[in-house]
Amino acid sequence: MQKSIEVGCNLSYEVRQSTVFLFQISCALTPHQVVDSESLILNPNLATEAFSAGIEANRMHRVVVEPCELNVSYRGNITLTPEIDEPGEVNEASTAHMPPEVLTYLNPSRYCESDLLGRFAFEEFGHLYRGYSRVQAVCNWVCEHLDYTPGSTNSSTTATAVLLQRAGVCRDYAHLAITLCRGLGIPARYVAGYAVNLQPPDFHGFMEAFLGDRWYLFDPTRLSLVSGLVRIGAGRDAADVAIATLNGDARLLDQQVWASDVTDPAAGGGAAPESGISTA
Amino acid sequence: MQKSIEVGCNLSYEVRQSTVFLFQISCALTPHQVVDSESLILNPNLATEAFSAGIEANRMHRVVVEPCELNVSYRGNITLTPEIDEPGEVNEASTAHMPPEVLTYLNPSRYCESDLLGRFAFEEFGHLYRGYSRVQAVCNWVCEHLDYTPGSTNSSTTATAVLLQRAGVCRDYAHLAITLCRGLGIPARYVAGYAVNLQPPDFHGFMEAFLGDRWYLFDPTRLSLVSGLVRIGAGRDAADVAIATLNGDARLLDQQVWASDVTDPAAGGGAAPESGISTA
Amino acid sequence: MQKSIEVGCNLSYEVRQSTVFLFQISCALTPHQVVDSESLILNPNLATEAFSAGIEANRMHRVVVEPCELNVSYRGNITLTPEIDEPGEVNEASTAHMPPEVLTYLNPSRYCESDLLGRFAFEEFGHLYRGYSRVQAVCNWVCEHLDYTPGSTNSSTTATAVLLQRAGVCRDYAHLAITLCRGLGIPARYVAGYAVNLQPPDFHGFMEAFLGDRWYLFDPTRLSLVSGLVRIGAGRDAADVAIATLNGDARLLDQQVWASDVTDPAAGGGAAPESGISTA
Amino acid sequence: MQKSIEVGCNLSYEVRQSTVFLFQISCALTPHQVVDSESLILNPNLATEAFSAGIEANRMHRVVVEPCELNVSYRGNITLTPEIDEPGEVNEASTAHMPPEVLTYLNPSRYCESDLLGRFAFEEFGHLYRGYSRVQAVCNWVCEHLDYTPGSTNSSTTATAVLLQRAGVCRDYAHLAITLCRGLGIPARYVAGYAVNLQPPDFHGFMEAFLGDRWYLFDPTRLSLVSGLVRIGAGRDAADVAIATLNGDARLLDQQVWASDVTDPAAGGGAAPESGISTA
Repeated sequence: MQKSIEVGCNLSYEVRQSTVFLFQISCALTPHQVVDSESLILNPNLATEAFSAGIEANRMHRVVVEPCELNVSYRGNITLTPEIDEPGEVNEASTAHMPPEVLTYLNPSRYCESDLLGRFAFEEFGHLYRGYSRVQAVCNWVCEHLDYTPGSTNSSTTATAVLLQRAGVCRDYAHLAITLCRGLGIPARYVAGYAVNLQPPDFHGFMEAFLGDRWYLFDPTRLSLVSGLVRIGAGRDAADVAIATLNGDARLLDQQVWASDVTDPAAGGGAAPESGISTA
Repeated sequence: MQKSIEVGCNLSYEVRQSTVFLFQISCALTPHQVVDSESLILNPNLATEAFSAGIEANRMHRVVVEPCELNVSYRGNITLTPEIDEPGEVNEASTAHMPPEVLTYLNPSRYCESDLLGRFAFEEFGHLYRGYSRVQAVCNWVCEHLDYTPGSTNSSTTATAVLLQRAGVCRDYAHLAITLCRGLGIPARYVAGYAVNLQPPDFHGFMEAFLGDRWYLFDPTRLSLVSGLVRIGAGRDAADVAIATLNGDARLLDQQVWASDVTDPAAGGGAAPESGISTA
Repeated sequence: MQKSIEVGCNLSYEVRQSTVFLFQISCALTPHQVVDSESLILNPNLATEAFSAGIEANRMHRVVVEPCELNVSYRGNITLTPEIDEPGEVNEASTAHMPPEVLTYLNPSRYCESDLLGRFAFEEFGHLYRGYSRVQAVCNWVCEHLDYTPGSTNSSTTATAVLLQRAGVCRDYAHLAITLCRGLGIPARYVAGYAVNLQPPDFHGFMEAFLGDRWYLFDPTRLSLVSGLVRIGAGRDAADVAIATLNGDARLLDQQVWASDVTDPAAGGGAAPESGISTA
Repeated sequence: MQKSIEVGCNLSYEVRQSTVFLFQISCALTPHQVVDSESLILNPNLATEAFSAGIEANRMHRVVVEPCELNVSYRGNITLTPEIDEPGEVNEASTAHMPPEVLTYLNPSRYCESDLLGRFAFEEFGHLYRGYSRVQAVCNWVCEHLDYTPGSTNSSTTATAVLLQRAGVCRDYAHLAITLCRGLGIPARYVAGYAVNLQPPDFHGFMEAFLGDRWYLFDPTRLSLVSGLVRIGAGRDAADVAIATLNGDARLLDQQVWASDVTDPAAGGGAAPESGISTA
């Protein structure tokens, strides 16, 4: 089940003072997500410094920009070859045997205060069978109890606030689902990326839970097909995977984002399953 | 300026059900902190799994314990050879040139909501000279505005709560200083460790700020000499460096912690400086 | 359905500096709650200033005490003659016709942030029939979703925190039920009082909701019989009805509280109903 | 020192469903604030129910409006004859002797969590002389540490949030000053009103502190002359004095507010003092 996906974005900024930009818009490189070709073009034509950083080696580009109108354009052609498992056969991992690098995703983080929601999580989901289906139940609960309401949250909104106000956007849905999973003892992390046919088009935020021996993708908003998610980077929460971090004085003027499935129908055949998908 | 330090701890637990323990009590290994010898003994004599994990490769030991009374005893002989710089010559680093792996320490974290305190930090410290002395000013402010009050905070207390209530313990002092530094654009991280002659004896929490091209140690509580700090591990905040994480059902019965400077006076000579110290 | 109830308390304090005490321990006077006799005795024998204050004219006693050991003893013999209505016939009042003095109990207050929980309340209870039974449903939800856990909260804990952590004591149960009612547009207020046979004996905190044209009593903890609740005072939340407010330096040494039903069985006959009860 | 002030407002709403409006836009009646004439006109010409409610007997108008475009117009001609005292002679009142009805204004309220800021208040202002000048110092501190930033806060923002983010509007300035006063043991309350020559024209929020034996006016924003403040109502915080409370479905289309000093210069003479002013 292989997919070819074209993604991209155009960002333009009014840069008023010398500003350091840190972009996370390039697609991640994993065994299951191959970047066949990509380009990152700045206008004016400035040299960017590319590196990978953080616990997940997220790809970043850093550039210092003097006052101007800056246009940033990224295009990528991606081949996804996800691992696909039968959800009913995927159990939760035990902290006794979990890979060490996964343990950090049990800790609370800025937007995912799992230390505050452990009792809540156990009360709602503690009685459920311990496996893929329990994470799915968490995501269903989040989707059914929140209203998708642009403008209802801001960059400081945390999972507990979202749980109380029962409204948010994709980032908030992911944060709440992550927090509840961690509260249950299931490692969970935030993923930023592109999503095929997302309406309205935008960057997307979703999540992964560690089950069995790998990370599985979930989108608690149900706004995307999980089989059409292209990863930019992962982290403990949105603080780790900001699309653009600015240090200086600049203003976003315009943003366009897209992602399309361009799989050759002859090669594919049939719809992809939408659960049990791993691309990490 | 070399120091020999003996550190150790005894922890005993009543384990009531099968419990997974994750200990972070072993001393870190860095070019400036050499572990000459160490031992970790469990009674009953259980095999532990040792590994390094997380962005800072903190050393951890994992063990699954069935119901019993568990005693854990760690001893280490450490040689510290800190890098010591003249504080007046240490400037802040620019985000344009900072090493990529440092950037994550500008992000807010669970107990350090730097996104909420940027304006506060700039108002109090924005006018100061940008260098080591500014971090020192932050630490002084924290020390002078907080009361060291055991019991005033708990494991969910964040830097903003500490700032409002003006009381806390070492962990809270460190969290607030870290948060204010990040608010100023200075990378800062939490360090857990042993502190020579700490009164009352306990594990200690302090911080590092990234200045120039390295991490410098600060203790906003002023309860320890910075030259006598022995690192266990570092992370974004205390969530990353818990001394013991338990999954199961166990209760701490007793805890003893110690750290002594056993430097041969013939070899040393004179007191160590207390600023401009790096051991990362 | 008349009841005779004996209530009382003994409080003793170590007063270390001149301290102003404000006590709210005397029973309220309402058409349905008659104080047949009462006494308030201080040892040393100090004169207290008695007055009624606040929107509900709560009874208070003020006294200035110099350093000493202070004993305060209150005893009251109360006759309750509640209004008792058939719950099924009690509807919610409309804001268009509510008595003006009731409107303030729709506002958020310190411990009842109803502005934050309106959406939550509507999602959980918005579809229910609008009447006494809806408030009962709120109280049931609170009782079923919280664990009664002494020590889990403190004097700064608010309804939203209780909702997240799912634990609290009587005061917290009342705050959460009040907050959810206000979120639904139902005026609700906090009542402090004595409760017959409360185990363990203590002062009690419960609530009233305004329905139809009067205030009805509810105890979301289910620890007391509503027919055995004796009112001290009411207010927006516990901030308005503190048993003792101290300004100075004193420490509570001991506290005893009691309340017994001493109704002459010959006069009574049969158990009181436990719903539809008004004593305001 | 008498002043004649003309105040007024026009409010228009698109009413989409039957909506209950509760307006607090009429000027308060006090010994020092006489309403010489006033009018409240609704278009369509609906009958309003006028009453006074709450602890401060704030004047309110209630009206039920069916779908339409509603225009509400209030005009008042006010004579202010403030009590004016020499600030240096006004001391703080003792809780031992304060009038009972004032005590409630020492309690924390929804937007003024004085229980959380007592230590902060004492640290910053505890050493100051206990009198009018201390409240002035609190107001000065608030003015100097906050940025007046429309849009930086919303209807759920509390004093602690304002203190951390160091930005707000008039309501937030008043909340923070009130909270700090209560933290110091000084009764303080919120006042909504009209302010002569306020720029940009709007309703205004300010505060009163109880000193000596009366309430004194303060405006921590310094945007108005205290001598030109016309009171609508007072309460524990903004939750008690909302200009308009809506229950139904309506949208504010337009709002105009004004207040002008029309004192006959022949009668007056000279500028009014701007401190030590009471109009309660």
